Amino acid sequence: MTIWNGEQRRVHMQEVGTRDGFQAEKTFVATDEKIALINALSHTGVSKIEVTAFVSPQAIPALRDAEVVLGEIERVPGVVYTALVPNVRGAERAIEARADELNLVMSATVSHNVANLRMTREQSFRGLKQVAALARDAGIAVNISLSCAFGCPMEGDVPDAEVLVWVQRFIEEAGAHGVTLCDTTGMAYPQQVERLTAQCIARWPETEFTLHFHNTRGMGLANVLAAIDAGATRFDASLGGIGGCPYAPGASGNVCSEEIVHALELMGYDTGVDLGALLEASKRLPALIGHDTPGQIAKAGRRLDLHPRPADFDAILARAIEREAASRPQG
Amino acid sequence: MTIWNGEQRRVHMQEVGTRDGFQAEKTFVATDEKIALINALSHTGVSKIEVTAFVSPQAIPALRDAEVVLGEIERVPGVVYTALVPNVRGAERAIEARADELNLVMSATVSHNVANLRMTREQSFRGLKQVAALARDAGIAVNISLSCAFGCPMEGDVPDAEVLVWVQRFIEEAGAHGVTLCDTTGMAYPQQVERLTAQCIARWPETEFTLHFHNTRGMGLANVLAAIDAGATRFDASLGGIGGCPYAPGASGNVCSEEIVHALELMGYDTGVDLGALLEASKRLPALIGHDTPGQIAKAGRRLDLHPRPADFDAILARAIEREAASRPQG
Repeated sequence: MTIWNGEQRRVHMQEVGTRDGFQAEKTFVATDEKIALINALSHTGVSKIEVTAFVSPQAIPALRDAEVVLGEIERVPGVVYTALVPNVRGAERAIEARADELNLVMSATVSHNVANLRMTREQSFRGLKQVAALARDAGIAVNISLSCAFGCPMEGDVPDAEVLVWVQRFIEEAGAHGVTLCDTTGMAYPQQVERLTAQCIARWPETEFTLHFHNTRGMGLANVLAAIDAGATRFDASLGGIGGCPYAPGASGNVCSEEIVHALELMGYDTGVDLGALLEASKRLPALIGHDTPGQIAKAGRRLDLHPRPADFDAILARAIEREAASRPQG
Repeated sequence: MTIWNGEQRRVHMQEVGTRDGFQAEKTFVATDEKIALINALSHTGVSKIEVTAFVSPQAIPALRDAEVVLGEIERVPGVVYTALVPNVRGAERAIEARADELNLVMSATVSHNVANLRMTREQSFRGLKQVAALARDAGIAVNISLSCAFGCPMEGDVPDAEVLVWVQRFIEEAGAHGVTLCDTTGMAYPQQVERLTAQCIARWPETEFTLHFHNTRGMGLANVLAAIDAGATRFDASLGGIGGCPYAPGASGNVCSEEIVHALELMGYDTGVDLGALLEASKRLPALIGHDTPGQIAKAGRRLDLHPRPADFDAILARAIEREAASRPQG
């Protein structure tokens, strides 16, 4: 069994387009459109949907309708509906709105944590321990996401050992049931991904690890495969490949859900996802966000979406065969 | 040793942007600009450059200056300067212009061969045997490219056995020293690539095999890695990822030279390429072809091209530390 042959190994797809994607959009997607899209996604076979974020409406107006969206979507059995929460206030809102899981976040580097969350890492960690305790009391699962786990756009490389210390604190001090290693700005490369993922899974076999890649430098699918090779089974991805990367305007965002599913299914992995349904959902995006998406399958079609022969094909072939007959030696 | 760790294994990069790329462009790139770009590419460490094609100027006006370009470029020792030739007339022109190698092409399927070359496959094969004989007499190497080796946009899947028959005829009947398996419209997927490449290398260990992928469906880098895992060491790629895919307007073209080099070097492969020099060459492209390119490294920068902290970083950090001090229990 090699990495190139899935042999029906199960890989779970977790959709983050409606949070990580929409959050980066200038256009406000109407609440009923968000709900309709999430309902469609719920029926594609994805394992988890990051529905929204309970953040300040001033900070991220695109997600100011978090309560309504999480409150009104259809809950399809088997799908985990998660929400990003930055603090206790956000957690209370998300719990009230019946999130299945809270997703907390902090960065592996002080530069990114301060720039993005306006706190030191220790402050962030104290905050997320409070949130985790709140969730535990409410009987809700906690996932903690570590931004810049594969590198920081301001500091560069992050030593594996430092990443492992934070993962350890998330699991052993904050009691996270799941940890996401986030490649926030597309700095991860397959060798590093394989190495870091393998270490995490070996040390904490009971923890649900998710890998969250951005395709900023074209390594998204290769990173997914390297992570699978190291034992990972859960991947974040966004419909159409939308999602922000403020440090690389114009570059791709998150790895594209339908591209990853398309590739993995061709290789014999079992993603549980109906690719046709996912593509239908993806095709709604340009109308919702007002621009094209980076995802390539929606444009090029699936591998075996065939094209007709040119209209004059038969005439060209007939002329070719005629020439062949004329050039044949007379018997 | 896994595929994720290059351990200084040698991988040869072959640049096809000035042929496969420019041929698909509406804008005519001025002859002296082509020459200057190829001269720059010659000093990046790529192993081969497909300089141009000796085709009918009416059919492909973008390459109507083939003689001048191949005649006037600097010849850097160690770089093989190859040219695509469709027939005996083209071969004579390329030999006269001192090509190091002729690259001949036909398709694995009758539909693509007739639509693209207006001949049956047997007619094409007879033609390329003539060209190969001509090249042999002139002491020039012959590479034969098989289009649609991983699938045909009109016929769909192509059985491995059929691909292997054509490869066998190229090597054993036409005397090709090299064979390129072309993923003409981005249908290849890693499982298939590994399987087909391994079979070719096992059967013809003396033949120089090249893998030519398009990134139409986002699988380019993964396909390169699957091919390396099967023993391949030579890859076509185009600067900026330019190159046509008439069946998927807007989708990526060839795999992007600088993206592949960037990823492979991070993983410890030895491409022999100076990535900085390659990126400099890539950044010339938008001005030459009049539009942006699909390549992401030129936009996002290399993995460790760092960004400054926000201008107000120190103030944010100071406020955070102040809050921390204020919230600390008084002793």
